[in-house]
Amino acid sequence: MQLLHTLCRLAAPAGNEASLSHFVQRYVTEQKASWRVQPKMLVGAEFQDCILLVFGTPQTAIFAHLDSIGFTVRYGQQLVRIGGPAVQTGYRLVGEDAQGPIDCTLTVDEQTGALSYEFNREIERGTELTFHCDFRETETTVQSCYLDNRLGVWNALRLCETLENGIIAFSCWEEHGGGSVAYLAKYIYEHYGVRQALISDITWVTEGVQAGQGVVISLRDSLIPRRAYVDRIRLLAREAGVAHQLEVEGSGGSDAKELQHGAQPWDWCFVGAPEEHVHTPDELVHKADIYSMLRLYQVLLEKL
Amino acid sequence: MQLLHTLCRLAAPAGNEASLSHFVQRYVTEQKASWRVQPKMLVGAEFQDCILLVFGTPQTAIFAHLDSIGFTVRYGQQLVRIGGPAVQTGYRLVGEDAQGPIDCTLTVDEQTGALSYEFNREIERGTELTFHCDFRETETTVQSCYLDNRLGVWNALRLCETLENGIIAFSCWEEHGGGSVAYLAKYIYEHYGVRQALISDITWVTEGVQAGQGVVISLRDSLIPRRAYVDRIRLLAREAGVAHQLEVEGSGGSDAKELQHGAQPWDWCFVGAPEEHVHTPDELVHKADIYSMLRLYQVLLEKL
Amino acid sequence: MQLLHTLCRLAAPAGNEASLSHFVQRYVTEQKASWRVQPKMLVGAEFQDCILLVFGTPQTAIFAHLDSIGFTVRYGQQLVRIGGPAVQTGYRLVGEDAQGPIDCTLTVDEQTGALSYEFNREIERGTELTFHCDFRETETTVQSCYLDNRLGVWNALRLCETLENGIIAFSCWEEHGGGSVAYLAKYIYEHYGVRQALISDITWVTEGVQAGQGVVISLRDSLIPRRAYVDRIRLLAREAGVAHQLEVEGSGGSDAKELQHGAQPWDWCFVGAPEEHVHTPDELVHKADIYSMLRLYQVLLEKL
Repeated sequence: MQLLHTLCRLAAPAGNEASLSHFVQRYVTEQKASWRVQPKMLVGAEFQDCILLVFGTPQTAIFAHLDSIGFTVRYGQQLVRIGGPAVQTGYRLVGEDAQGPIDCTLTVDEQTGALSYEFNREIERGTELTFHCDFRETETTVQSCYLDNRLGVWNALRLCETLENGIIAFSCWEEHGGGSVAYLAKYIYEHYGVRQALISDITWVTEGVQAGQGVVISLRDSLIPRRAYVDRIRLLAREAGVAHQLEVEGSGGSDAKELQHGAQPWDWCFVGAPEEHVHTPDELVHKADIYSMLRLYQVLLEKL
Repeated sequence: MQLLHTLCRLAAPAGNEASLSHFVQRYVTEQKASWRVQPKMLVGAEFQDCILLVFGTPQTAIFAHLDSIGFTVRYGQQLVRIGGPAVQTGYRLVGEDAQGPIDCTLTVDEQTGALSYEFNREIERGTELTFHCDFRETETTVQSCYLDNRLGVWNALRLCETLENGIIAFSCWEEHGGGSVAYLAKYIYEHYGVRQALISDITWVTEGVQAGQGVVISLRDSLIPRRAYVDRIRLLAREAGVAHQLEVEGSGGSDAKELQHGAQPWDWCFVGAPEEHVHTPDELVHKADIYSMLRLYQVLLEKL
Repeated sequence: MQLLHTLCRLAAPAGNEASLSHFVQRYVTEQKASWRVQPKMLVGAEFQDCILLVFGTPQTAIFAHLDSIGFTVRYGQQLVRIGGPAVQTGYRLVGEDAQGPIDCTLTVDEQTGALSYEFNREIERGTELTFHCDFRETETTVQSCYLDNRLGVWNALRLCETLENGIIAFSCWEEHGGGSVAYLAKYIYEHYGVRQALISDITWVTEGVQAGQGVVISLRDSLIPRRAYVDRIRLLAREAGVAHQLEVEGSGGSDAKELQHGAQPWDWCFVGAPEEHVHTPDELVHKADIYSMLRLYQVLLEKL
């Protein structure tokens, strides 16, 4: 879990994913010699801070978002949310501005809910703050901020080791309304004819989805994927004997929103481990769910 | 109204429109020999469950959504909405899962508004339920669930009988946020240069729109179409002497949302009959409005 | 400020921008002989009521929306909002229907907030009404309805006088959910390879942004632009010594929404003067901020 720990520590709030993108690019460059198939890596100005990895003759694309939730420093001591972080007075926030590194504390006004920071100096307007990473591992679990979605990124990178055919898309802005999947999806569809997608992301433990019971195949969240495609995925999971659970929600979203609303006929399905303590510094995922997630992706990328 | 009755009975909740799509495809194949012009039918994986019919040299495209509102079975007895169905304890819901056909009853918790079903067995997670169809016809009206939008589909299919030039697009997911019109619109614009649209759908009886007073030309709902285009449609309706009413709303939407926000310069206008008891099992439309709707589409497809 | 006054007086509620578009087209045709570089003007059905001006070899595109907020006449005396106008009983509204010119008064129901008009006759259903223009100029300020966004249009037109390389896009529907930038952005990207944007629009005076302190560079509003791009703009502004302020908001939007969500990898930044009395007939902007806005655009279009 060393790789996961590193991914969780790197700051990449939505809109400023550059440092995590560079880390992933270096990781791919260094590791790919040991992979079964050498992917083509597409990066550069035409992809902003996103990354595409193309393996063999792809049939399916995996979307894993790089960005995280966080906070932007507004005026005075005020903070504005990036995405939808949970808030609690005392959360430790880190960042950097021209005056140097920042390690401060979140304050939530009990009356108004207004967010601010406490620090020994004023922080420059527009500075992004993210949760301090306290990575905790037990025999059966991992716990940290930003398992959503560094685990989805980790899953994609581990999948690369054995992947023969497929596309991995590392996207940006997912936590804050999206903004990159539309063009990634267009590029993939037009250049490779691929229109099957899996969303490598983290979902919620709920009354119907338990920790430790396997990867989640989501039948719907705020959006509804095409039934025929989801049914194929369920069948492959059953045939392969991979532990999994079915989710049915009326809210929540993912990179799939941009696939659903884009100008290509994408089929998509959210497939990911569930977590507790969503969007807090203490997101918790069971290792069994992580491994069944990776296993299911290996099966699906081979057979879908 | 036998065709309309059949259309209303077929289950096609947003995301699972396959059976209705197959019915329409068969209908077109069987009927088209009797039509004035033989259309080209575009279907297949690139169009998911949508259908395009291209007649002659098209200037205008008609969008009619196949999907309906409904419910998804969540955990235990819980239900989650597909789109925005009206809910009332006692509504009869039907569906099917691996254990066989389902005919159950909707329950609305008076305190919380939570939705559930009553049935003699548990229904499988993720199963879609739709309103039971009780089709009622009088001299002057039709009443059923899903007149929105099986009447829009019916209007398009009846229009096919005499249509010489134009495109019919049968779309999916309209009731649940959309997801197909973006790519249909792109395909149509790029392959046929068409950028005029009519939305063949059903609207509301309100204080300004009465049942039986003719088809509705909508000047706006939550979105505002380009004035110059709507004015052309109004002029053609007046010149042809087709009974019609003008609608002005601040809310509501249609497939036009995807046209308005897509990356082609579509002009669009909602043209459809008004109904009472919107999104209930008892949607009611006056036949006079249905016939003026079909008549206006015949005029517009010839002259627009 | 004669040009600005003229721009403010012309009615162009979202969806009916034709008359302002024609005015701008005539202005360009008449004035361009005196400009440093002759632009190519792209207009016509493929652009609806939008206008593209292409100067030299463009690297950056400027988006300035033509449309304004307003009201649509519904049934009886009722009004429905176009965009988000401020409302107050007594506001003077103007328009025109088939019976002639309209000069009426807005009424806001104190209990329900319902909007209506008072006039000496009934106004035709669907008629658009806009604020009456009372243009006021002092040594240091201008005040009028619709400085948002006629000042953004004015800024773009004044920039044309010296512009050597760049694209100006005059867009529609910005105040009411958008609808033109998606296709303008696609056209620009595909024909000119341009993917850098500046949003020439007006923002708000707040506790962190003061009138008279210079043009605003927005670090975020409801959306978050890519950090690396905004940092380049900040650096160029500092190097050029142009008075400017930094904005950080959690709400508000602009034409940038469509760039962010479109299928091209646009970098964008909102750069515009701040105003008081937002979306009222009395929008107020300091001339110093207008001139620093124009100056910053001149710098950015040269160096970005």
